[in-house]
Amino acid sequence: MAQPVEHEELTVPDGRSGCPINMTMELLGDRWSLVVLRDVMFGGRTRFRELLGHSLEGIASNVLASRLAKLTDAGLLSRHAVPGHRQKIDYFLTDAAIELVPLIIELGSWGARWLPTTPELTIRAQLLADGGPDVAQRFMDELRSIHLDHQPPADNGVLAELGAAHRRAVEQA
Amino acid sequence: MAQPVEHEELTVPDGRSGCPINMTMELLGDRWSLVVLRDVMFGGRTRFRELLGHSLEGIASNVLASRLAKLTDAGLLSRHAVPGHRQKIDYFLTDAAIELVPLIIELGSWGARWLPTTPELTIRAQLLADGGPDVAQRFMDELRSIHLDHQPPADNGVLAELGAAHRRAVEQA
Repeated sequence: MAQPVEHEELTVPDGRSGCPINMTMELLGDRWSLVVLRDVMFGGRTRFRELLGHSLEGIASNVLASRLAKLTDAGLLSRHAVPGHRQKIDYFLTDAAIELVPLIIELGSWGARWLPTTPELTIRAQLLADGGPDVAQRFMDELRSIHLDHQPPADNGVLAELGAAHRRAVEQA
Repeated sequence: MAQPVEHEELTVPDGRSGCPINMTMELLGDRWSLVVLRDVMFGGRTRFRELLGHSLEGIASNVLASRLAKLTDAGLLSRHAVPGHRQKIDYFLTDAAIELVPLIIELGSWGARWLPTTPELTIRAQLLADGGPDVAQRFMDELRSIHLDHQPPADNGVLAELGAAHRRAVEQA
């Protein structure tokens, strides 16, 4: 963080103040944006229909469409036409969105500690929080491979570990 | 985080799902709640008039009132009548709010990296992020002393260091 910024900043409208906490909440402080990013990040879902059909929270179609557009405009998702399907679009995380991993881990960790969450929906957040910076870094590296380089998820990657732990928790529930 | 929960959980309405990321965003995913908590946390402001008058973002009086009520109902702020002033209320952070420090540090760190923030409003977020878990822990200990035990801020505490760094940055701006 102390290093000079070497990447392009996101383009956001002039806001209420230039405080970084305020600016992040102006961009992401709504009830759905980070939940949509969570689904792209953890669910490996990159298409509108998958994100809509698998939504745990039953997101409405118009809300999902508006959040995907907002996140794309902000530079947190990138749209790619699926080869051979002119109308199908994959949404991939950008580097700025991948760097939200530590923030999303903190959201999950605080929620798991203080809110009456569902155990089988909490196991992934717990594993990530317990894993510390090393696991967060491995997870971000894996997301870069999938979303920036368009490689398939590794069989022994963090996503595979989280998925296996989640399935075990569902079986035991 | 892997330890059993030994404290009371916050009381929140039944929501969209029991996922901890979702539940935290259902509670705090609006454009003002975390900004109000930031001001109580960093600004040392505990009264309505101070929070209103010093708001960097010019929060409206009715919005501030509604967020203070919401955060109090959720168990993130506690109201204390100022001795001798029946109508004056101090708002103090609860332990649940103090434990949002790592999340708020991540909000500031991500915002400082990716958004066109104002340098003199970014220095505190940078110092906290650069300080790592030790400084976050010292900061939470200091907030517990102020908000739970109602002690004055220490002259050599994290809040004093952050305030001094902010003043130096303003002078150089």
